[in-house]
Amino acid sequence: MSIQLLSQNTVFGGLHQRYTHQAHSTHTQMTFAIFLPPQAQQQAVPVLYWLSGLTCNDENFMQKAGAFRKAAELGIAIVAPDTSPRGDNVADDAEQAYDLGLGAGFYLNATQAPWDKHYRMYSYIVDELPALIAEHFPITDKKSLAGHSMGGHGALTIGLKNPHQYQSISAFSPITNPTECPWGIKAFSHYLGNDQSTWAEYDACKLLAKHGSRLPILIDQGDADGFLEEQLKPNHLIDVAAQQDIDFELRMQAGYDHSYFFISSFIDDHLHFHAKHL
Amino acid sequence: MSIQLLSQNTVFGGLHQRYTHQAHSTHTQMTFAIFLPPQAQQQAVPVLYWLSGLTCNDENFMQKAGAFRKAAELGIAIVAPDTSPRGDNVADDAEQAYDLGLGAGFYLNATQAPWDKHYRMYSYIVDELPALIAEHFPITDKKSLAGHSMGGHGALTIGLKNPHQYQSISAFSPITNPTECPWGIKAFSHYLGNDQSTWAEYDACKLLAKHGSRLPILIDQGDADGFLEEQLKPNHLIDVAAQQDIDFELRMQAGYDHSYFFISSFIDDHLHFHAKHL
Repeated sequence: MSIQLLSQNTVFGGLHQRYTHQAHSTHTQMTFAIFLPPQAQQQAVPVLYWLSGLTCNDENFMQKAGAFRKAAELGIAIVAPDTSPRGDNVADDAEQAYDLGLGAGFYLNATQAPWDKHYRMYSYIVDELPALIAEHFPITDKKSLAGHSMGGHGALTIGLKNPHQYQSISAFSPITNPTECPWGIKAFSHYLGNDQSTWAEYDACKLLAKHGSRLPILIDQGDADGFLEEQLKPNHLIDVAAQQDIDFELRMQAGYDHSYFFISSFIDDHLHFHAKHL
Repeated sequence: MSIQLLSQNTVFGGLHQRYTHQAHSTHTQMTFAIFLPPQAQQQAVPVLYWLSGLTCNDENFMQKAGAFRKAAELGIAIVAPDTSPRGDNVADDAEQAYDLGLGAGFYLNATQAPWDKHYRMYSYIVDELPALIAEHFPITDKKSLAGHSMGGHGALTIGLKNPHQYQSISAFSPITNPTECPWGIKAFSHYLGNDQSTWAEYDACKLLAKHGSRLPILIDQGDADGFLEEQLKPNHLIDVAAQQDIDFELRMQAGYDHSYFFISSFIDDHLHFHAKHL
């Protein structure tokens, strides 16, 4: 599988690179970004996969999170994929809503037309992209997951479903219970259809209740987040976690909102958390 | 003088805020951003003014530089103004070039029509904005200047011309000698006219040669910066500084380009440098 370099920047003694490649999961050209810490010049390094939220692409986290100083210190690579397939031939919401279609892949494999042709971000993130990264970059087999909002949902659901592939999970402001919030209900109705029994495998609360978690989980949530009550519902996940014997911490952060200003304030804690397990 | 809050985010225990106000310097509505460190809740804090480069507004530095962690630790406020007047009635380049007109104010007072009506960023930065900040925020009288590219030019020229108002100057990739590079010659021809004797007061090399510097100066420049040879010409400034008995350091940074990835890698050094003098 070949990849084409789009751009490269030196940052904190390491490299930030953007690549494009033809993805067999989505049948589209996909773009991802990677940060390689300085240590990667001499040795293989572990990888943190960052899954972004609605409307984002590979660039938001890399430009705004302020993660590279600590990742360079800890020797962790970071991979940031796009949040959906893209292209003129890819289905989008008729009204170009921000919460369905382009930029809103929800890290699942769609089963309903017209979405099922390209919207296969679950397979892309779980199988195709890690294989591609392993083929082209100096990495170990240690991987962890982090994400924000829709990407926090992605990190939690992918990690809970594939505990042997990852070491740890963290999230900022995740959509914890998409089968019970407007964003999730809208997206799952379109991508997965009206049979709600198929939705459960993409819902962190339902997955955690059913399987528990072999992986440690760290979550930060701002209490001034405008999406807190209607969309994110951290209390639903806290209630489920309390029934389980798991390594789980959810921190409510006073005054913080849903933005990258929030993420940047606590990303070092998340990198330290993952470094312990990578 | 009143200001209207546009938005507010908690970040690193402090506040990032955006404000708009009617500016008498530019006769336009101007927007600026401010970071208030946690210390500002109890005491007055010094201020670093950040001047951005071509095409930027108040948001680029605040979102991409990763400066707030260290500024919160050191107790320094940061003010990021826009790079030009804006508005439907403000003159712009006929071809909307990125290096003239909107987003390209060059931190000078234009003397030529149609620019002279609104393009008065020098007065705005030197006089109006500091007075406004002092009126509305808990700050001390200690101020320093930093900037990038066109904003590095702004930081150097404003600091060199007003040494009693500031404590220190730093820059990333500054346009050091605008009277001898294409960006500067184009902008100064339009804003200041063809009499090049009027250009010297906005040229860091000429100002430093004429007046020296009472203020310490720190500059970082990437050696992989695509604008290095044609536009930025750090060697011109190094040559002038070598003739002066001043506190001056220009560091060439191997592998770094002109982007905010570069700025983020060394902004902590600049904040420490300013903190020594604030």
